Amino acid sequence: MRAPLAPWLRTTVTLLPLAFGVALAQGVESAELAELAYAFDTFALLMCAVLVLHMKPGFALLEAGLHGSKNAINIFMKNYATLAIAGLAFWAVGFSIMYGAPLFVAGYEAEAYPGAADFLFQMVFAATAATIVSGTIGGRMKFPAYLIFAVVMTALIYPFLGSWHWGGGWLSEMGFYDFAGSSVVHAVGGFAALGGALAVGPRLGRYVGNRVVAMPGHNLPLAGMGVFLLWIGWFGFNGGSQLAFSSEGDARAIATVMLNTNLAAVGGAVAALFLSWGIFKKPDFSMTLNGVIAGLVSITAGPDVINGIWAVLAGAIGGVVVTYSILFFDKLKVDDPVGAISAHGTVGIWGTVAVGIFGGANLGVQVLGTLAYAGVAFVATYALFMALKAVMGIRVTAHHEVGGLDIAEHGAEAYRNADSLNNPVLMGAGD
Amino acid sequence: MRAPLAPWLRTTVTLLPLAFGVALAQGVESAELAELAYAFDTFALLMCAVLVLHMKPGFALLEAGLHGSKNAINIFMKNYATLAIAGLAFWAVGFSIMYGAPLFVAGYEAEAYPGAADFLFQMVFAATAATIVSGTIGGRMKFPAYLIFAVVMTALIYPFLGSWHWGGGWLSEMGFYDFAGSSVVHAVGGFAALGGALAVGPRLGRYVGNRVVAMPGHNLPLAGMGVFLLWIGWFGFNGGSQLAFSSEGDARAIATVMLNTNLAAVGGAVAALFLSWGIFKKPDFSMTLNGVIAGLVSITAGPDVINGIWAVLAGAIGGVVVTYSILFFDKLKVDDPVGAISAHGTVGIWGTVAVGIFGGANLGVQVLGTLAYAGVAFVATYALFMALKAVMGIRVTAHHEVGGLDIAEHGAEAYRNADSLNNPVLMGAGD
Amino acid sequence: MRAPLAPWLRTTVTLLPLAFGVALAQGVESAELAELAYAFDTFALLMCAVLVLHMKPGFALLEAGLHGSKNAINIFMKNYATLAIAGLAFWAVGFSIMYGAPLFVAGYEAEAYPGAADFLFQMVFAATAATIVSGTIGGRMKFPAYLIFAVVMTALIYPFLGSWHWGGGWLSEMGFYDFAGSSVVHAVGGFAALGGALAVGPRLGRYVGNRVVAMPGHNLPLAGMGVFLLWIGWFGFNGGSQLAFSSEGDARAIATVMLNTNLAAVGGAVAALFLSWGIFKKPDFSMTLNGVIAGLVSITAGPDVINGIWAVLAGAIGGVVVTYSILFFDKLKVDDPVGAISAHGTVGIWGTVAVGIFGGANLGVQVLGTLAYAGVAFVATYALFMALKAVMGIRVTAHHEVGGLDIAEHGAEAYRNADSLNNPVLMGAGD
Repeated sequence: MRAPLAPWLRTTVTLLPLAFGVALAQGVESAELAELAYAFDTFALLMCAVLVLHMKPGFALLEAGLHGSKNAINIFMKNYATLAIAGLAFWAVGFSIMYGAPLFVAGYEAEAYPGAADFLFQMVFAATAATIVSGTIGGRMKFPAYLIFAVVMTALIYPFLGSWHWGGGWLSEMGFYDFAGSSVVHAVGGFAALGGALAVGPRLGRYVGNRVVAMPGHNLPLAGMGVFLLWIGWFGFNGGSQLAFSSEGDARAIATVMLNTNLAAVGGAVAALFLSWGIFKKPDFSMTLNGVIAGLVSITAGPDVINGIWAVLAGAIGGVVVTYSILFFDKLKVDDPVGAISAHGTVGIWGTVAVGIFGGANLGVQVLGTLAYAGVAFVATYALFMALKAVMGIRVTAHHEVGGLDIAEHGAEAYRNADSLNNPVLMGAGD
Repeated sequence: MRAPLAPWLRTTVTLLPLAFGVALAQGVESAELAELAYAFDTFALLMCAVLVLHMKPGFALLEAGLHGSKNAINIFMKNYATLAIAGLAFWAVGFSIMYGAPLFVAGYEAEAYPGAADFLFQMVFAATAATIVSGTIGGRMKFPAYLIFAVVMTALIYPFLGSWHWGGGWLSEMGFYDFAGSSVVHAVGGFAALGGALAVGPRLGRYVGNRVVAMPGHNLPLAGMGVFLLWIGWFGFNGGSQLAFSSEGDARAIATVMLNTNLAAVGGAVAALFLSWGIFKKPDFSMTLNGVIAGLVSITAGPDVINGIWAVLAGAIGGVVVTYSILFFDKLKVDDPVGAISAHGTVGIWGTVAVGIFGGANLGVQVLGTLAYAGVAFVATYALFMALKAVMGIRVTAHHEVGGLDIAEHGAEAYRNADSLNNPVLMGAGD
Repeated sequence: MRAPLAPWLRTTVTLLPLAFGVALAQGVESAELAELAYAFDTFALLMCAVLVLHMKPGFALLEAGLHGSKNAINIFMKNYATLAIAGLAFWAVGFSIMYGAPLFVAGYEAEAYPGAADFLFQMVFAATAATIVSGTIGGRMKFPAYLIFAVVMTALIYPFLGSWHWGGGWLSEMGFYDFAGSSVVHAVGGFAALGGALAVGPRLGRYVGNRVVAMPGHNLPLAGMGVFLLWIGWFGFNGGSQLAFSSEGDARAIATVMLNTNLAAVGGAVAALFLSWGIFKKPDFSMTLNGVIAGLVSITAGPDVINGIWAVLAGAIGGVVVTYSILFFDKLKVDDPVGAISAHGTVGIWGTVAVGIFGGANLGVQVLGTLAYAGVAFVATYALFMALKAVMGIRVTAHHEVGGLDIAEHGAEAYRNADSLNNPVLMGAGD
């Protein structure tokens, strides 16, 4: 016969299963909580990616509206092609170059969410960097030349440059700070656009002697709609760049980021509106639109650290910078129908530097980093377009340019009333 | 030598750390759960704010489409300026007046999410109240006068009125019920628009003797797109107004709110479509669009308590009210190019009263509250505009009005084909 | 006097409350976690429903842009009416037929979220199926006839067909696989459109002898914006169809679904772009737009099981199928102004079959199921329209068709400059 357990042991034995049961249940619980956090992080990142996707029609409408109606289809084709190409090239190659992930995102895992969600969010950034160029070279570049650029940009140039900072490269090690891509996306896109503009040259008739001939956009309501979509999408662009959503700290950071993003957009809009009022004697619409974009680009490097009134100020300075930058590039006879070199390029530099001034980052590193981004993006893109120029030509004929790329490149017209011949009061024709 | 512990104390001592460990782990766990709920509440509110932001291009497109093409840029400029001004003035001052928060939202904390998220959600409501006015006074008001109105509206008038209910003021204490702002936002915006319309007077040539001269909008597809954006944005407007997302009760409330919101929109659309069919012998497009808005405004005070068929009915009555209200104001020679006084003002009153009829609120208090909102918004805005009229003038010259505000106020035209001279088949000109 | 407790019992009694307290707290905790998961599932599904709602303006803009300007208002009226009718008819009757829920969704409960959220998500699917038809029969059908179709489609036809699979009916039992509705929504909508097109006949002047007369759309930028909205909305359409969001497995599935959805869209766009380039010698815009839609429809049956390169391939084949299908139906003199029969119908069949080829589903069942869907949708819709034809007529007069449905059916014009007579440089009229 076994000796009975000592009473205290008996108690312990009695209670232990209960305690272990509780602890076990708690383990299950804890795993469930972690799982819910994972699911929430995933969904939030995907929603932000979808918000950023709103920027694609945003750019398409802005660019189409600011070009002549004879080029509207071509603008849309380039924007669709850019998104398609980014979806393929950045998926097959670019993402791997930028983040060291496997080719084709195959089997890639991120920590807080599935690799596929991480990729989708990063892919729309790559598409943005490339799309910025499409407006600047509008109205005169051959469609195939642009397609090749978009492939190289999303497969190689943007990923290579992005790896310097977001891929953990040398700029990251130096303490460079670019939260959502004032430099990585916007300065890169803007200075790539400069490379394209120099390679392809200005539109025919744009510069006559020292005079800049106004070539107003054909449909400013489209442009107005486009910038609203950019503004909306930017909340995903900057907010989602926190890349984590489920802790209280993340939540606070994202709310702060979104508030500062809006304050800077507002600062840029107001500054450009009043500055253009001063310069042109009337508050200018397309300058105000560029002011909104400039405000947004100004805060993109530091929406988490440039707070409140400083965000307004950073955006307002961006609104001033974009206005003078547009006038400056026109003086240089660099033709940019949509002002993207200035709004994304010049202001992208400003936004990066602003984190050194208002946000506590090392100013020298910020300057070095953004100049490196702008410089290499410019040189790489210029070299690419010059090579394409030598090999296949990048500019359409004068005849095609005057007639418009829609007919020349796509055999169609953006606006038609061919089946309305019996209704003469349409589209203003009968007024 | 110490006396040994009594056996039962020994057991207790043995097991206590385990029990405490479990309890401690559970405390951590519980904190993590609370944190996740906080993060989720934050993200959900921010997403709703971004949805409401869709209403800005929604209003801009609707208003631009229903005005002549000569005023399209001016409409967009006012809508951008309104959003920018709300982003500054409601941030600096208005939010503090409305909710007793610190100026500049500095250090403000909400309970379930960061103060910045709370502010962003409330800011887009302030912008909505102001934007409602921009369409009604379109085509004849000086741009600077509108800017000053927008500042006063988002810094003072809307916050002061909003404090009566959402800021915990006297109407709140009386049991007034306005879930998402049929009165606080829409009746206020709509009757402010009435104040503006009376102060600035009708467009030239709108009323000839007793005849109302039709001045049809220049681009109804823009208006059609605009109202779809309003419909989409309203899911954030009403759904987000639950202001809490993480409990089962909140989830049920939000789903109910969104369903009732859709049912009322549908009721308003169908009622206006068929009523206009009866009145004009054909189903009218712009009346159907106003029916959608009216349906949405009708449910905005009580989307959580006016359920199912009653939501359809409330919306349908809104669709009838907006139709007759538009005809009524035209009889009074109050010129409202977009019908905002009726769709937001008159129907805003109806929506508030509807909660007393279908939703269990005190009917007397609902009537009192909504009339107070409508009355004070009207008087304040009318007084403001009359003061501006005396000081600086609020109406453009007849010459400018006939030529359009786009050229007069902004030196630009919404639609141009200046660079398309060699392509005669554009925009219908060659057909 | 009571005997004292044995020491070990005393210990047990001492510690039990603590242990029970912990366990009890944990029960509360567990309930809170479940509640948070419920709230998150609800919000995520509602956000997906709102994303799908973006497809309504998407379809409206696409269809309006591809029709003549004389029919733009009519297109918008049909799209608004479809959404309104779906919101009423699918709510009152259809949802009950499809899922066995109570009429009017009254008291309906889903498992992981409120019944109202489940209904809203399913309702936008019903609206999509009906809307697909509105473009195909554009420009010649009487508005009342379309309204009656929309009622029958969303109350009876779509719900009846949907019940076969998603309602747990015979196809579900056979192992048919259609994740988000290549067949249930798109093939049904596309072949209903075929029924409508055959019943109403081609537009006047469309087929002259063996020649197909081009009737180009009046506003391709609208169409371009529309397809961007479809692309955006499809992330909710396919992603939300997982119908559960809060587990790690769900999160992984949704991210995979969204990635594959994008890859297929990209595959379709690229294939249609290059194929049209080959056929027409120029990359065609409207074919590229149809390629995007075709890519999206191709993956909709199996976005969770057709992965990576196979998603690209499935989409690309869709892009090829839509191109030849459009040419084929024109050969047959079946007039489809927007290509919806091909993009949704033919490609809907392909997408369903693709899950049998690339995704492991039973190929025979997939073929049987999709043909059953296409066949019954076609026959039911054709029969309905032929009955309406006999009873009330479904086609407008030739006079009305030539003048456009906007004036004939709605007494309005989409584009006007009536108040701009003194500004001759508007809308291209003066260039």
